[in-house]
Amino acid sequence: MTDLRGDLVRIDRERLWDTLMELKEIGAYDDEATGLRGVRRLALTDADAEARRRCVAWMVEAGLEVRVDRIGNVYATRPGRDRSLPCVLMGSHIDTVATGGAFDGTLGVLGGIEVMRALNDAGIETLRDVEVAFFTEEEGVRFGTDMLGSAVTAGRIPLDHAHKLTDAEGKTVEEELVRIGFDGPEPELRPVPYAYIECHIEQGPILADAGVDIGIVEGVQSISWQRLTIHGEAAHAGTTPIVSRHDAGLVAASVVVELRRMCDSGDFGQLRATVGSFDIGEGQTNVIPQRAVITIDLRNPDDTLMSAAERHLAAYVAELATQHGVEVAWERMAKTAMVPFDRGIQEVLSTTADDLGLPYVRAMSGAGHDAQEIAATCPTAMVFVAGEHGGISHTPREYSDPAACGNGTDVLANAVLRLANQP
Amino acid sequence: MTDLRGDLVRIDRERLWDTLMELKEIGAYDDEATGLRGVRRLALTDADAEARRRCVAWMVEAGLEVRVDRIGNVYATRPGRDRSLPCVLMGSHIDTVATGGAFDGTLGVLGGIEVMRALNDAGIETLRDVEVAFFTEEEGVRFGTDMLGSAVTAGRIPLDHAHKLTDAEGKTVEEELVRIGFDGPEPELRPVPYAYIECHIEQGPILADAGVDIGIVEGVQSISWQRLTIHGEAAHAGTTPIVSRHDAGLVAASVVVELRRMCDSGDFGQLRATVGSFDIGEGQTNVIPQRAVITIDLRNPDDTLMSAAERHLAAYVAELATQHGVEVAWERMAKTAMVPFDRGIQEVLSTTADDLGLPYVRAMSGAGHDAQEIAATCPTAMVFVAGEHGGISHTPREYSDPAACGNGTDVLANAVLRLANQP
Repeated sequence: MTDLRGDLVRIDRERLWDTLMELKEIGAYDDEATGLRGVRRLALTDADAEARRRCVAWMVEAGLEVRVDRIGNVYATRPGRDRSLPCVLMGSHIDTVATGGAFDGTLGVLGGIEVMRALNDAGIETLRDVEVAFFTEEEGVRFGTDMLGSAVTAGRIPLDHAHKLTDAEGKTVEEELVRIGFDGPEPELRPVPYAYIECHIEQGPILADAGVDIGIVEGVQSISWQRLTIHGEAAHAGTTPIVSRHDAGLVAASVVVELRRMCDSGDFGQLRATVGSFDIGEGQTNVIPQRAVITIDLRNPDDTLMSAAERHLAAYVAELATQHGVEVAWERMAKTAMVPFDRGIQEVLSTTADDLGLPYVRAMSGAGHDAQEIAATCPTAMVFVAGEHGGISHTPREYSDPAACGNGTDVLANAVLRLANQP
Repeated sequence: MTDLRGDLVRIDRERLWDTLMELKEIGAYDDEATGLRGVRRLALTDADAEARRRCVAWMVEAGLEVRVDRIGNVYATRPGRDRSLPCVLMGSHIDTVATGGAFDGTLGVLGGIEVMRALNDAGIETLRDVEVAFFTEEEGVRFGTDMLGSAVTAGRIPLDHAHKLTDAEGKTVEEELVRIGFDGPEPELRPVPYAYIECHIEQGPILADAGVDIGIVEGVQSISWQRLTIHGEAAHAGTTPIVSRHDAGLVAASVVVELRRMCDSGDFGQLRATVGSFDIGEGQTNVIPQRAVITIDLRNPDDTLMSAAERHLAAYVAELATQHGVEVAWERMAKTAMVPFDRGIQEVLSTTADDLGLPYVRAMSGAGHDAQEIAATCPTAMVFVAGEHGGISHTPREYSDPAACGNGTDVLANAVLRLANQP
């Protein structure tokens, strides 16, 4: 890269690892299913508040200027030479699901703090400000909307709407922000960054299968969630001839099988389809199911092929309904278009990885991330870090080794450094 | 028939109908799902006890000798000229499911009582005793074992075992028999009858589709109940490639679809397959199901083809398990071989129907009946009576019109009369 100023910086891997291990003690619990120690740190709970305070303390120790916005997003700035220029932003989240691990989200936040420490240790001054952030309620487990803090700061979700969201006990986001002392004074629509890079564990097997620690993320897949309800007719399993049946369970099962066929066919590109919920009520061995409700989760890195998949599915279900004499009803639960990440930022990441001698693969993200929200405001990309056990996540089994975490954070550090010195 | 002695007897249709309508008031309830008045008369409840006492009163009024055995089966005898000869037995049950109608079981019992009245009215004396019975807990809804009373009297289930069965509240059959006063003194293994005929509603659409009121039943299908548990692996719907999945829900759905294909193929004769229960737990839209449990109900009028179907299914599931990398476990819930009914009794029934000018079809029973138990002890057959709405049963919508009930009971009366005069 012609714009490379100075040598490569290296983060302190042991310090990063110690920080990751320290934070995972906040909200730790004994997980019965795995026999492991997990992390339960739902957004805006006492555990989340304690983890937030710990991170703020680390930020202050690193000499950063900390500020909190009205949705509880926290930003910490390392000033550059020209403070009038837009900053380079790093970030992710520190809230977890109910059965979480030590890496999801936290690697990007604690990695970002480690980048700041490494820049300090090397005595490096940047042209632009560098910032590290953590965003509120990325998981969506407590208040029902994922990427909440980043969606608010990106202007997609109005602050007022976000404040009024409630948890299962009826507590609002606003009440909980006030309670834990993270209802900051800063406007939720922050100054636009020059670039945003999020380092995150992959949560999938692609990197490990390719034998690399690093993934350069090209974008986030399109996501479609629909609920399909099938109304058939209950009847006696023994006395009802096959041709006289209106079997809601069979129709639902046929949809599940067809979805897999669609994925395998290649007709819809890299379509991934999942039926995670399949409900026919209590059920009786000798009664034909009257009603079935299934959810259909479709992912596709290509919006056109996603639409084609949805159209094919709708036509298939309509034909099936006629064939079996059942009524069907569709309900749209969610739909997001594919979010492509910035090619320029990806280019900086790939050159940086090459310069560090770290092999990588390019990949689409199958999961949602704060980066897909921030991408609406500034050039954005992500660095993925490989995980073990097929990249399993949202469980205490989630694990990325110190070398992978260190390599990912080295890529983050040097890419940020290069961007922060771009005039 | 050369052995026909005397003219044809005709039952009193209005009296039969009035009796049916009177009994359905015992245990009547307002059914929310249908807006109709249904019958809830679970075995050995207060409602069942009241219905039992009403039937016994009708039996006594008809001059019959009533006795109760140790499993609560009730027999009422109209003496013949030679009491040393085995009797001709009619019967069925008066217990219902929780959402029952007025005809299932009761038609055979109240029809049998009406046959006795009609013989009385016509002043007919028979060579052999004629008996009418109702058997305890045919539905199996309360104590979990269907055809309980008839299975005990046929010697298949030991009395002691039956007495100890419990309902959901832990009450035993024996306690409940004592409580309602139907713990009779008669041995449960009764004197072997000369023949048994059960008149029952069809609970299916075959008769109505053929445009006839009467079915002569050739036997009861083989029934196979199995539970299949599939252990896969939970994983993220967005990040897990299709080829890396171990989707328990997909494997279960594939089994459901294959079962239907097997039925449609004709390779397994008149196989009927039903998956009435499909459980993957609560389920989450974006999580691949870890575990699925389904029940598989197979029916087949041919034991050889039933075994072939079970073998094919086991091989299919084993292959599917390998393909998807899941573990499967089979559990046998129930299996009964096909029960063929006696050809001689069927011949008496068909000749009788011909003599009465009533068209009929021959059919296999898809449901289980007391007759399949009694068939182990003496020559047995059944008369089916057509129902409306596709023969729907186990719901307050269950309905057979007065003409069909009357025609079925006329066939019963005259077939019994002929058999009772056979030396």
